[in-house]
Amino acid sequence: MSLSTGPANEDILLREDADGVVTLTLNRPAHFNALSEEMLTALQAALDDIAGDANVRCVVLGAAGRAFCAGHDLKQMRANPDQAYYQDLFATCSRVMQSIVDLPVPVVAKVQGMATAAGCQIVASCDLAVAAESATFAVSGINVGLFCSTPAVALSRNVAPKHAFDMLVTGRFISAAEALSNGLISRMVPDVDLDAAVTTLTAEICAKSPVAVRTGKAMFHRQRAMSLADAYSYAGDVMACNMMAEDAAEGIDAFIAKRKPVWKGR
Amino acid sequence: MSLSTGPANEDILLREDADGVVTLTLNRPAHFNALSEEMLTALQAALDDIAGDANVRCVVLGAAGRAFCAGHDLKQMRANPDQAYYQDLFATCSRVMQSIVDLPVPVVAKVQGMATAAGCQIVASCDLAVAAESATFAVSGINVGLFCSTPAVALSRNVAPKHAFDMLVTGRFISAAEALSNGLISRMVPDVDLDAAVTTLTAEICAKSPVAVRTGKAMFHRQRAMSLADAYSYAGDVMACNMMAEDAAEGIDAFIAKRKPVWKGR
Amino acid sequence: MSLSTGPANEDILLREDADGVVTLTLNRPAHFNALSEEMLTALQAALDDIAGDANVRCVVLGAAGRAFCAGHDLKQMRANPDQAYYQDLFATCSRVMQSIVDLPVPVVAKVQGMATAAGCQIVASCDLAVAAESATFAVSGINVGLFCSTPAVALSRNVAPKHAFDMLVTGRFISAAEALSNGLISRMVPDVDLDAAVTTLTAEICAKSPVAVRTGKAMFHRQRAMSLADAYSYAGDVMACNMMAEDAAEGIDAFIAKRKPVWKGR
Repeated sequence: MSLSTGPANEDILLREDADGVVTLTLNRPAHFNALSEEMLTALQAALDDIAGDANVRCVVLGAAGRAFCAGHDLKQMRANPDQAYYQDLFATCSRVMQSIVDLPVPVVAKVQGMATAAGCQIVASCDLAVAAESATFAVSGINVGLFCSTPAVALSRNVAPKHAFDMLVTGRFISAAEALSNGLISRMVPDVDLDAAVTTLTAEICAKSPVAVRTGKAMFHRQRAMSLADAYSYAGDVMACNMMAEDAAEGIDAFIAKRKPVWKGR
Repeated sequence: MSLSTGPANEDILLREDADGVVTLTLNRPAHFNALSEEMLTALQAALDDIAGDANVRCVVLGAAGRAFCAGHDLKQMRANPDQAYYQDLFATCSRVMQSIVDLPVPVVAKVQGMATAAGCQIVASCDLAVAAESATFAVSGINVGLFCSTPAVALSRNVAPKHAFDMLVTGRFISAAEALSNGLISRMVPDVDLDAAVTTLTAEICAKSPVAVRTGKAMFHRQRAMSLADAYSYAGDVMACNMMAEDAAEGIDAFIAKRKPVWKGR
Repeated sequence: MSLSTGPANEDILLREDADGVVTLTLNRPAHFNALSEEMLTALQAALDDIAGDANVRCVVLGAAGRAFCAGHDLKQMRANPDQAYYQDLFATCSRVMQSIVDLPVPVVAKVQGMATAAGCQIVASCDLAVAAESATFAVSGINVGLFCSTPAVALSRNVAPKHAFDMLVTGRFISAAEALSNGLISRMVPDVDLDAAVTTLTAEICAKSPVAVRTGKAMFHRQRAMSLADAYSYAGDVMACNMMAEDAAEGIDAFIAKRKPVWKGR
């Protein structure tokens, strides 16, 4: 959580496009990239824009400065002491988090510093998360009398319940190594290698068939809530459909011919 | 599991209250703190009493002697060879386990020795578990022809399925280190530090806002069974309500002013 | 995934019975034990046969040659470019996977080499998995333009979501050590000890009460999808019923008398 609220600023969220990879950078470093209303609005707009763009292959969600994201903007919250305001705020924030999950392409959190409260929730909500060894993670709202309830939704779907609840009720920081072990992040690298590791990962994803990646991400999240039988029925149909795509034919033929596939799909 | 059955004894479960922390101590050390009918009745009564006590901030569930808890009292069970009796017994035990989950305040298992069968289930059912390095864990009913079915309910909601099933079908003991890694416990400390570690943890919890801790525990367990969208909707409302509590205002104001918060809520 | 399709062959799946342990061995080593239609049919038939055999105590699912299983037979798939064919194929494969889960006795994957795509799914679907240290695991369909959708169903029910999705979207191999840590396998041993470790494990299972093992496996999988309250109600009834079995009486009496139990049940 961060203390200061600045005016809406077009530059609070940077966007860079390169070779199908969109890099969004939280850019309020002086405020630890706090998720002010303006930041949430900017994030939602960027995600909505990306959702409709068939040229995007994957998204990196990173941050400027020493902290990844300190969660909500506490000063702004205290300036609006109204339950309806808070309901709207948390609904807005929850919509951003669910938009990450619902985005048709993979979203990679790139974590270079501390990720706390809703900042930790962003990490939990992304499909993949690469963290610098020195990055730290906490759901620390409890320290200010505000249990991290919405972050708990994402955290408890990634991390074993006792590990999640320990973080939530004590507000303690865990290391990147602990986050890798408990499932909160998918990869950890030396600090100096963070940029390169994320670039390598996004290049790997971009080298896959676009239709297969999009098919897979949507299927992955959707089947998780189903019974085993329903999930198999659904996944089997999705996979049969995927097999009919030109890319699957090309991919298998290339594999059989021991050549590199050339994807047609976007 | 333990062999011996003693008469009901007021001292089979000790209760100590200090600064908002209730410490319950299983006290049948000669019988490895087996969960006889009398012990289950005493536990249920203590949990019911705590549930209605607004002064309690957290609960420690510990045990006297070398073992934490060896599960059900096998001699007592064999003395009552009746299916209705067993249904009642397991329903009674399951009610105790669910009462731990439903208790308004966090419950910390303090594990100093072996925790087997329903003893391991107690650990799995608590919100947090601190174990001595030498503690061991097993769901060993299978060794006496009785698969640990009710313990499996709690275990499989904490531990990956293959790790849980391996324990259940072989009855093998795992170390505290393995229990920490697989999610069964939240913290492990050198044996000599167990008392201090639990005291530190409960002091940490007592230093938080009571309303935030109570709000958070109930929310945490309830949202786990929901779909992502429903969980966010529910958690957002809970968090907005939490923001309207005096403690959240105080906590955030104290944070902004860089002073220590003074909680009003209980 | 494998490249070659051979004719149906009675020897593509070997079956060996010894002391209640059925060992099924995928036997197309030249084709990395690919799951051709014929292999799936042979597996389904073997599982159906075992399901009705009260003498079987547990099943080992192993493989001949250097690879455990490379998933579907890609050449055969490409020879049948028809969506209805693929739907049938994935439904057939999903039925095999669910039959492993539904089998009344535990199924142990014995993994001596790489397990990819539906080969990795077999490992995920088994109740237990013992792997050689040099074994590797991947869900690599994404490399040929075919996201491993049905394998994802099994994988995501064993492994934390970010760890699963990282494997699915990059196709990367993980080591046996990583598979042990993330829950995909239950035990890892030095390569030279694999046979002995599996023999020891199956002997352990065979030394338990048959009725308790069968009761437990079915209960374990069924209760996972239930709410906590429903799971406890169901598990309590199952356990009361288990207590009425002769084996539970014998097991507890033997434990009290400090002698070895003699199981009556099959």
